[in-house]
Amino acid sequence: MLRNLKLSICYDGTDFHGWQRQPDLRTVQGVLEEAIRQLTGFEATTDASGRTDAGVHALGQVVHFHSASPHPPEVLVKALNALLPRDVRVRGAWEVPQSFHATLDAKAKLYRYVIDNNTIADPFQLRYCHHVHHPLDVAAMHLAAQALKGRHDFHSFETRWPNRTSSVRTITHIAVNRMGGFVWIDVEADGFLYNMVRAIAGTLILVGVGRWPASRVADVLAAEDRAAAGPTAPPQGLFLVRVRYADDRE
Amino acid sequence: MLRNLKLSICYDGTDFHGWQRQPDLRTVQGVLEEAIRQLTGFEATTDASGRTDAGVHALGQVVHFHSASPHPPEVLVKALNALLPRDVRVRGAWEVPQSFHATLDAKAKLYRYVIDNNTIADPFQLRYCHHVHHPLDVAAMHLAAQALKGRHDFHSFETRWPNRTSSVRTITHIAVNRMGGFVWIDVEADGFLYNMVRAIAGTLILVGVGRWPASRVADVLAAEDRAAAGPTAPPQGLFLVRVRYADDRE
Repeated sequence: MLRNLKLSICYDGTDFHGWQRQPDLRTVQGVLEEAIRQLTGFEATTDASGRTDAGVHALGQVVHFHSASPHPPEVLVKALNALLPRDVRVRGAWEVPQSFHATLDAKAKLYRYVIDNNTIADPFQLRYCHHVHHPLDVAAMHLAAQALKGRHDFHSFETRWPNRTSSVRTITHIAVNRMGGFVWIDVEADGFLYNMVRAIAGTLILVGVGRWPASRVADVLAAEDRAAAGPTAPPQGLFLVRVRYADDRE
Repeated sequence: MLRNLKLSICYDGTDFHGWQRQPDLRTVQGVLEEAIRQLTGFEATTDASGRTDAGVHALGQVVHFHSASPHPPEVLVKALNALLPRDVRVRGAWEVPQSFHATLDAKAKLYRYVIDNNTIADPFQLRYCHHVHHPLDVAAMHLAAQALKGRHDFHSFETRWPNRTSSVRTITHIAVNRMGGFVWIDVEADGFLYNMVRAIAGTLILVGVGRWPASRVADVLAAEDRAAAGPTAPPQGLFLVRVRYADDRE
């Protein structure tokens, strides 16, 4: 019987064409599966908690795969890190029950969208934030964001592809905070639609710069129409921070 | 009479071939002088507090140039930032007395060498630190570093090119501190020899990993021989933090 192995990984998404394996493109799944193949001698297919797009980062992406590998988890961490390129790291490995599935069993994911709100953009953060020159009204953004909390149809914040059967999701936590010159938008939900956090960020930025009143976000949600919301904010500000599972192993 | 203008600039050195203008290579001086030319319509030659090498960063490099530009300093900051590539930013501009010279008048410079000492290297800090896997004994490094404080011949920490007439310098402050998983080596001196901070960092790392006793650094200094010291640590961990002038304008 193959073992079921769970990994927590982090990556700088800048130089990847997103998570999902694609022919002839450098993807996180591609380099990870190649490292597993080199280490174990077996092909493996990995499943992640969800796909991340080109340029999007992960601090705590969770992955599982089945393998005949006999390596103890702590050896897997070291050996995979020795084989992987330096912009993706394995943070931890665990042997889990056969039934565990990183995609299907994810109960909640936390994403953070980071905005550099310094007047002069920080040249060391170009790959890790979206720069907004105009001072953001964080209190207004936070207030506006609360309209999104709870179970709603988020069709207004969904980009066309790939459409899911339903665009109803539950946001369990949403908060906008300032950390010095940087603004963080944290969104935790039971699932995310395509570009959902980036559409929320693009919408809240319109509130933050004063172009839209905070109350408008509730109207955008009610419209169930992508055209009602703000633009999709660029990928480099987005981080998948953590994924929660019922077993809470990590 | 041309005005004498002083700039404080920061840059991510990763994609530059160092500070100094070179034909057909992307350098900080090259892009800065090009932005000044575009803005003012005049060629200008800039002088910096000192050269930084390829891959070395600056938080507070200081530069001066003479120009017929009529722009008030606050306009210079905005307009140059609009023209410069995003990995170099002007933090401030001041009109200074004709006699001010960024290189010759620098009284002290503070460099910081940053080491990622996490067991698993942080993939988001690859461009901004040198990763050392072995846990560093920061107390031993700090103790060893104190032997370098004061006025000494630093020939043991100087790479061949370009040799100065004298390799005597005065280190006014040197400290090694841990910030979570990161270790900072701060060195302030009245001047620096070529690769001096990187040679000091490479030497202190040998102490930190336990290969050399802390007391050996005093012997290395006394040897006045580059071969006695440790290796030159890689450039990406090095930051020029600030430059002090007698007029303390900044």
